[in-house]
Amino acid sequence: MSVLAVGTVALDSIETPFKKEDDVLGGSAMYITTAARFFTPHVRLVAVVGNDFPPAYLDLLRKSGVNLEGLEVDPEGKTFAWSGRYHYNLNDRDTLATHLNVLETFDPVVPASYRDSRIVCLGNLAPKTQQSVLAQVDDPALVVCDTMNFWIEHTPEDLQETLRLVDCLIINDAEARELANEPNLVRAARTIRGMGPRILVIKKGEHGALLFVDDVIFSAPAYPLEDIQDPTGAGDTFMGGFAGYLAQAEFIDTEALKNAVIYGSAMASFCVEDFGPTRLFNLGVSEITRRMHEFRQLSAFPFMMEPKELAS
Amino acid sequence: MSVLAVGTVALDSIETPFKKEDDVLGGSAMYITTAARFFTPHVRLVAVVGNDFPPAYLDLLRKSGVNLEGLEVDPEGKTFAWSGRYHYNLNDRDTLATHLNVLETFDPVVPASYRDSRIVCLGNLAPKTQQSVLAQVDDPALVVCDTMNFWIEHTPEDLQETLRLVDCLIINDAEARELANEPNLVRAARTIRGMGPRILVIKKGEHGALLFVDDVIFSAPAYPLEDIQDPTGAGDTFMGGFAGYLAQAEFIDTEALKNAVIYGSAMASFCVEDFGPTRLFNLGVSEITRRMHEFRQLSAFPFMMEPKELAS
Repeated sequence: MSVLAVGTVALDSIETPFKKEDDVLGGSAMYITTAARFFTPHVRLVAVVGNDFPPAYLDLLRKSGVNLEGLEVDPEGKTFAWSGRYHYNLNDRDTLATHLNVLETFDPVVPASYRDSRIVCLGNLAPKTQQSVLAQVDDPALVVCDTMNFWIEHTPEDLQETLRLVDCLIINDAEARELANEPNLVRAARTIRGMGPRILVIKKGEHGALLFVDDVIFSAPAYPLEDIQDPTGAGDTFMGGFAGYLAQAEFIDTEALKNAVIYGSAMASFCVEDFGPTRLFNLGVSEITRRMHEFRQLSAFPFMMEPKELAS
Repeated sequence: MSVLAVGTVALDSIETPFKKEDDVLGGSAMYITTAARFFTPHVRLVAVVGNDFPPAYLDLLRKSGVNLEGLEVDPEGKTFAWSGRYHYNLNDRDTLATHLNVLETFDPVVPASYRDSRIVCLGNLAPKTQQSVLAQVDDPALVVCDTMNFWIEHTPEDLQETLRLVDCLIINDAEARELANEPNLVRAARTIRGMGPRILVIKKGEHGALLFVDDVIFSAPAYPLEDIQDPTGAGDTFMGGFAGYLAQAEFIDTEALKNAVIYGSAMASFCVEDFGPTRLFNLGVSEITRRMHEFRQLSAFPFMMEPKELAS
């Protein structure tokens, strides 16, 4: 099956306790597609860059196998630029600057050849923009959506409209609590699914992820990483692995969704091992398979006998 | 096998968003033993109470099947009293008062009949007090230990001495980061195990628990609870379920330890369902077994095929 990702392609300026670098290739659509391409050759990108976008990055993306027909180059503007600094613990970060640039007037056009896309990933964009993309695809099997606190706070009605249109929302735990206005994650999940998405994934960073679908709750562990270099793009990479796995699954059922959460977690665990998207560009398939086995080891426990002396 | 728990038996004043009650039966030794008694009839308690300790509570404990030979009643003093208020999210709490009372002069005496105890649970007490208990038991198969930020900050050398003497430390994630002075939990775990304990369990509340033993890391999910009434005692109840399960296991090996973490999590999930220890006194064995199956459902995922179209 094909995966279509709409979102940003960005130039990031990243500062971690270990390293500082400007103009790093970034953006949600870039991370989603770069992760998804490990699972299916039919990965399509819709985004916009400016006249300053380095040809070397275009080259890298093209060689990665992602379909770039939907990547608009705006000759009038500059590429969306994000700048952030991570704290010592690498869990918290300060956004230092966000230059929307070409994103300010971005009105995504889905190429005719993309209209039959089966899995649509709506990266974190204005809810109205996400809706406009959905109106341009024929009949996707699954629509996966991201959002963030900015849209929850500033365009709540637009966001509610988007949520009515999507099958699956993937957000982090702070966003889930804010969106539902409820500190308990299980209750928050119930509230959010009442807004539309049949499937909800809550990402908890170093604590793993939760999947809610039908009456099922699935708890995925986090891969225990000692050396996190840069968390940038981990959430989008999760979505790429999640959608990519489902694109090649026979059915998109509960068991496939559980696997997809683990694949998403595995891809995200690679992403943070190096700066920017570096690790995703030098990753081998056998490494993904190996990590999936490690995920199984991490959370499997043996068949439990009834405690022999369990008091009556 | 027998389980010996040393710690507090307390009168708690608890305030949650839902309820406020004074003189609730509490204390680490009470919660540990009350949970452990579901797994083995040989559960022994060492603690002290004052002349104000309600006979009804003594009765309750006696009827629960816990061996109270080691429960000293100090006719000169009042029972250890803790008072706390939980925030709206039930994750954070303020300690309003801690009256040590009889605990100030507590010098635990392990009855001769307890000396052969096989599993020793050192509840959260002064590290020197924990050491004194260890000196009074013959040859335990496993020594499990708790501590808290107060001892980490105020008696670091005593704590280091205790850590050299124990097999297993069970603490929460904030305590682990503080003890190791390291924000990354995997690195923190390495540092802490370098201090002595061969086995480390890090409790993460709503995010589950991590077990570190040999080269194995095991990630246990948290039971998804929508209605948490009162988190008081959950950590001690975890230790009781953990130690109780191991007391009836054939071997204390890695697989048994994984199960013990799940049993500890299951017992803690019951504890928070009602106020104080109420739920632990009206809990049935079949409920524990059912919850264990739910834990398995929560984290098991199907055998993963290699992604069919995984790019090469």
